[in-house]
Amino acid sequence: MSGPEDLRFHHGAASVPDLEQAIEWYGRVFGFEVEARFPIPAAAAQVAMLVREKMRMELFEVAGARELPRERRDPHTDLLTHGNKHVAFSVPDVDAFMPVLERENVDIAMEIREKFGRAVYIRDCAGNLVEIVEVRS
Amino acid sequence: MSGPEDLRFHHGAASVPDLEQAIEWYGRVFGFEVEARFPIPAAAAQVAMLVREKMRMELFEVAGARELPRERRDPHTDLLTHGNKHVAFSVPDVDAFMPVLERENVDIAMEIREKFGRAVYIRDCAGNLVEIVEVRS
Repeated sequence: MSGPEDLRFHHGAASVPDLEQAIEWYGRVFGFEVEARFPIPAAAAQVAMLVREKMRMELFEVAGARELPRERRDPHTDLLTHGNKHVAFSVPDVDAFMPVLERENVDIAMEIREKFGRAVYIRDCAGNLVEIVEVRS
Repeated sequence: MSGPEDLRFHHGAASVPDLEQAIEWYGRVFGFEVEARFPIPAAAAQVAMLVREKMRMELFEVAGARELPRERRDPHTDLLTHGNKHVAFSVPDVDAFMPVLERENVDIAMEIREKFGRAVYIRDCAGNLVEIVEVRS
């Protein structure tokens, strides 16, 4: 068995304290737009599906949800508990993207040189880690 | 500002207690293959980057890491704490994929009908949630 023949990446997902703030942040930093908004009554959640070309991010807000634990805000301490970690996007030139991150006051968690090249971990407006890796095409 | 002009999805990431077991699981269920293995000494982590066509999953193992908290094993209770939640893959027909999941003894967390269609949450071999959504092309 080697999986379904037609498998595609559909979306990454993160939960946040303020859906509107997160929609604004993912739009401003990455260029995502709102594709749809819908509730999940069984989870008391408000959801926004964001889209940019063929990429999607799903954002959840549940009133009263606990804030992101401190250890999950750092790429290394996050690894001290099993779990889903982050979504990574690629750009052709991380150095060219850094001034944009600075201009938009994006919280930089860690800059590294991965096996695959240069990469930077950032935190979204809720502290959730997002990785940006350099892939020169 | 609307993000970098050339932004692509690169990978989702999860940490697991047993890297070899997880490599086997993601290969058997989704058809991923190992693209590279490397250590991250600063995090005492062993890493495998898996690839299938243009999709990647990055798996981390850190000796002694805590197991996945119980609340993160359920899609609804997972939303009670902010954080990165899951990666979702699409298939053209979820019903056609269900027998494969059953044959491979995949742990099904929840079947839902999303705004976008049918979807199912499964747990990987470490309990990490993965969503499969139906997208008919």
